[in-house]
Amino acid sequence: MSLLIVGTVAFDEVETPFGKTGKILGGAGTYIGLAASHLTDQISIVSVVGGDFPKKYLDLFREKNIDTTGLKVVEDGKTFFWAGKYHLDMNTRDTLVTDLNVLADFDPVVPQHARNSKYLMLGNLTPSIQKRVIEQMETRPKLIVMDTMNFWMNIAWDDLMEVLTMVDVLTINDEEARQLSGEHSLMKAAKKILTMGPRYLIVKKGEHGALLFYENQVFFAPAMILENVFDPTGAGDTFAGGFLGYIARKDDTSFETLKNALIYGSAMASFTVEKFGTDRLLEITGEDIEERLLEFVKMVAFKI
Amino acid sequence: MSLLIVGTVAFDEVETPFGKTGKILGGAGTYIGLAASHLTDQISIVSVVGGDFPKKYLDLFREKNIDTTGLKVVEDGKTFFWAGKYHLDMNTRDTLVTDLNVLADFDPVVPQHARNSKYLMLGNLTPSIQKRVIEQMETRPKLIVMDTMNFWMNIAWDDLMEVLTMVDVLTINDEEARQLSGEHSLMKAAKKILTMGPRYLIVKKGEHGALLFYENQVFFAPAMILENVFDPTGAGDTFAGGFLGYIARKDDTSFETLKNALIYGSAMASFTVEKFGTDRLLEITGEDIEERLLEFVKMVAFKI
Repeated sequence: MSLLIVGTVAFDEVETPFGKTGKILGGAGTYIGLAASHLTDQISIVSVVGGDFPKKYLDLFREKNIDTTGLKVVEDGKTFFWAGKYHLDMNTRDTLVTDLNVLADFDPVVPQHARNSKYLMLGNLTPSIQKRVIEQMETRPKLIVMDTMNFWMNIAWDDLMEVLTMVDVLTINDEEARQLSGEHSLMKAAKKILTMGPRYLIVKKGEHGALLFYENQVFFAPAMILENVFDPTGAGDTFAGGFLGYIARKDDTSFETLKNALIYGSAMASFTVEKFGTDRLLEITGEDIEERLLEFVKMVAFKI
Repeated sequence: MSLLIVGTVAFDEVETPFGKTGKILGGAGTYIGLAASHLTDQISIVSVVGGDFPKKYLDLFREKNIDTTGLKVVEDGKTFFWAGKYHLDMNTRDTLVTDLNVLADFDPVVPQHARNSKYLMLGNLTPSIQKRVIEQMETRPKLIVMDTMNFWMNIAWDDLMEVLTMVDVLTINDEEARQLSGEHSLMKAAKKILTMGPRYLIVKKGEHGALLFYENQVFFAPAMILENVFDPTGAGDTFAGGFLGYIARKDDTSFETLKNALIYGSAMASFTVEKFGTDRLLEITGEDIEERLLEFVKMVAFKI
């Protein structure tokens, strides 16, 4: 396998000023996988769902060439469920429901044929689960990317610090970077976090773009300026999937490739927010992606 | 004259988490002029100060080749005074004092030799004053840039709407763009504002960079990622001065030139925030500016 993804596969229920969904397909692993599937193949996902998870969604992953051998179905359990409501500014949201269900006892098992995957994406999960996945790899992946959140900084600091020493790229948002480092300045925060383990730090700033820190350098990818942000759910995970999907396709981990990957991540995320859930991600074509990338080039290109 | 600037020349007193200044040189016109003076010459300023305004500051403008014929000194009046205190995040501030003093009766008179200036920068002032300046021009400038703020949207809407029809470029921040247009999406806000008069709209997002909207296109200039933001006062005006200073030097008003100008504005602003007041703007050299511009190029350059 080329790209191994570990992350939640879930039911989401989302309310935005534009409307309300019923129970739809969601989860970090889902968005990461679907985004990456536009850019590379040989993708494998490790996750867990309940007996209530529709066969059509499992088929969907397979249609997208995502291997689901490692997607455990707990027949007598229920799938992880998250419900949230976005405020008018679409930048803040309230979590209404978090039913862990089968996720509470998730013990990830990486299928034998995925233990030599070249690239590993650790979606936002308990740091100890992320660690157990890394330990099952038989060959050290060329690049391990991990996502995390403030919640784990609050309740699993020591575990988080340990996993940080095992990965290459950390993706967090600006507030999380400040909390993790204790520094308000993002430049100072980045310098401190880069001493904790990762070689690269990505700071996601939502509608304000994303920063990639490496040694003393910083690269910036803007977010697309859209007429409507319809539903921001999954944007960060789509970003990660686009980012690592591009790297897996290029099979290169240089700073230059990671810069391009940041643009791909930002481009993919700009699609996800245009419709509810995974709707847009499922309908776009390679041509749509190429077109959007050109818009990014135009948005920042200048010649001094 | 090449560049005519109308804007406040003031005393500021600033408190940040890093310390507190006494009364120092401030004002929109000051920052615009000093920033532009690094990039072009034949600059003229129209403003008003009181008899308490030190001769050394007048000399400073002249040293920087800024013509002060239009800087009226009201001998028995006091100079406009603003005092503010920044919060810990440096993004929000409380205004502690606003003493308009001589600014309350400011009636701008453009000196005869500046009435054919090619470029005109209208700093943030009562819209009616901005209008009186435009009306004194004998030749329509090649580009008129105006700054404004939410305060004028609240108390002088009709005047503001009228001036908007007379200018080419409007510079405001994101919240002001939303208020002016009644649209939350910046893309929608921009489309609406571009029907109000200006051909170009610049939306300043502080530490998140700046957007230039033109027809159906959008260009993005990031803000420099700095270890320390020491004092944000004057950053927006420095940005405008760098922007129009560059345009005056190139003597060109194409979209391509305006894109570059946005980068110059962002680069100049990144200096201002590094020290209190105008301190950093007064000490930098052409070499410092060139170096900073290269950092901007590196920050956004990618090759897909």
